[in-house]
Amino acid sequence: MGERITLSYGDGMRDTYNIIRDVFLSSLSNPSLRELNDSARIGEFVFSCDSFTVKPLFFPDSDIGKLSIYGTVNDICVSAAEPLYLSLAIIVEEGFVIKTLEKIVSSIKIAAKNSGIKVVTGDFKVVEKKKIDGIFISTAGIGKRLKGRSSSFRKIKVGDKVIITGGIAEHGITILLSRNKIFDFDIKSDCQCLNKVLIPLWKKFSSIRFMRDPTRGGLASVLNEISLNTNLGIKIFENNIPLRKDVKAASELLGVDPYYLASEGRAVIVISKEKAKEAIKFLHNNGFRKASIIGTITKQSKVIIKTVSGGERILDFSYSLNLPRIC
Amino acid sequence: MGERITLSYGDGMRDTYNIIRDVFLSSLSNPSLRELNDSARIGEFVFSCDSFTVKPLFFPDSDIGKLSIYGTVNDICVSAAEPLYLSLAIIVEEGFVIKTLEKIVSSIKIAAKNSGIKVVTGDFKVVEKKKIDGIFISTAGIGKRLKGRSSSFRKIKVGDKVIITGGIAEHGITILLSRNKIFDFDIKSDCQCLNKVLIPLWKKFSSIRFMRDPTRGGLASVLNEISLNTNLGIKIFENNIPLRKDVKAASELLGVDPYYLASEGRAVIVISKEKAKEAIKFLHNNGFRKASIIGTITKQSKVIIKTVSGGERILDFSYSLNLPRIC
Repeated sequence: MGERITLSYGDGMRDTYNIIRDVFLSSLSNPSLRELNDSARIGEFVFSCDSFTVKPLFFPDSDIGKLSIYGTVNDICVSAAEPLYLSLAIIVEEGFVIKTLEKIVSSIKIAAKNSGIKVVTGDFKVVEKKKIDGIFISTAGIGKRLKGRSSSFRKIKVGDKVIITGGIAEHGITILLSRNKIFDFDIKSDCQCLNKVLIPLWKKFSSIRFMRDPTRGGLASVLNEISLNTNLGIKIFENNIPLRKDVKAASELLGVDPYYLASEGRAVIVISKEKAKEAIKFLHNNGFRKASIIGTITKQSKVIIKTVSGGERILDFSYSLNLPRIC
Repeated sequence: MGERITLSYGDGMRDTYNIIRDVFLSSLSNPSLRELNDSARIGEFVFSCDSFTVKPLFFPDSDIGKLSIYGTVNDICVSAAEPLYLSLAIIVEEGFVIKTLEKIVSSIKIAAKNSGIKVVTGDFKVVEKKKIDGIFISTAGIGKRLKGRSSSFRKIKVGDKVIITGGIAEHGITILLSRNKIFDFDIKSDCQCLNKVLIPLWKKFSSIRFMRDPTRGGLASVLNEISLNTNLGIKIFENNIPLRKDVKAASELLGVDPYYLASEGRAVIVISKEKAKEAIKFLHNNGFRKASIIGTITKQSKVIIKTVSGGERILDFSYSLNLPRIC
């Protein structure tokens, strides 16, 4: 670790993982934090939080308001809990246009209604011009745990199957394209709430071991976190990973690897091999038509990708995007 | 309301009250939010959140880390609930010194231990240099409600007594003096956790009607919020308000009214007149030696202060500090 924070500490990959372990866990350690889950389990509830600094504030099919609600809703539901209550802390820059704030609040209202979560408490702060870039939103959420269900690295076994619920990298590439007006693509953020499908999925399948939404750091980071925390490996088949052609083309033009780009409406699911196909059928029937079994948990503790051309390579965790404010 | 956000929208007084009502409540309205309490009641729990943007990050006797824990701990305990769990969302600027971050996390650790709250979940984000001023922290907290106890405007009656638990304006003036190195005062922030005294106080006195910590906007704003939400008035006796001489002198030098300056370790309590003196005795015996009965709830819906010289004036809510980042 260097002397100063660099952008890589916030990109959701190796450096982020390291600073959370070395600065936060080493000092604040307790069993809930150590689990490194998307939310903390407290009795019959889960508790989760997130900050949103995305730039631009508005982008195809979504905005910071919607993102700040669904981000926390999704963290709760991948933790096998029904989203119930949300807190909303907003910090804006002096000079921020009130109509823009109203537009964001209106988007928050719709997202809260859609996902069924209630915004019950809030905070609003203003800082001087140029001391913050526009508006940052922090949300924290409380969910009610589903009986007999949990997401835990410890439940993952060799032979389990890995599922992704839809096309990867669509949110991340949308943000990058919104900042870079040179290229013209018709790609939208995948930002959506997952609870309407994932809660019934949890209820139906008791052999779901683990679930996480691949936000910052993308699919590759979730797979590497699984490997790091289980000492197991994952073999992934590139052929099976849902990746839109235009998302792939845009990634190549911008020089980024889509496996590391954020989704905001997808989940990575680890489930017993016996139930994987049935789970895919359920996901297909409930609107997640691109859901796919992308790989298998293995013994050797690394993430290997079998490429379209038949070769194999390691899907590394040390890659650094240095791209801030994707969410 | 103008077209753009000004600093006054964040100072905890009239403009803040208005924007919360007009932009947030009008759109997100639900019974919990409408209560405008320091936290939301959800079943047997309360839920509260706050953001901290204080500048400077370190100031006499405290820092942004300690403040971000005690701020939420206090919001929970004035709501008649025992602080249990905390979420911690941190946004830092690229280039932020890691040793400074470690110092803040260490302060968070001590504050969490002191107040007995557990940091169970968190988030860490990095934004580009100059897109945020150093570090902003958002915390959200969950507390367990005390049986048969609640803080509510609706419980306040004419004749009830108003108590303040200690000297006012000490945190606010400390921050202003830290920014302005011309004057030399030996004043420290009053930042402290209140739960160790207030929880036993709640348990002992069933006739506590309402409690709030006078942070942004200070004592004057809490009194005015009481008046606005009850349609009752308050008569305050200047003589009885604990205000250190040096705090008063510093306020005069800096041209600010101490009645509007933040405390971060005080509570305003409304209690039945029969029990007020007994409560003061309890507070005195538990370390809050400057706790004082400062006034009475009246019929006429305004806040009147009886000055030291014997005159009377209205303690206005339209005053604007335009001083950002006090907490």
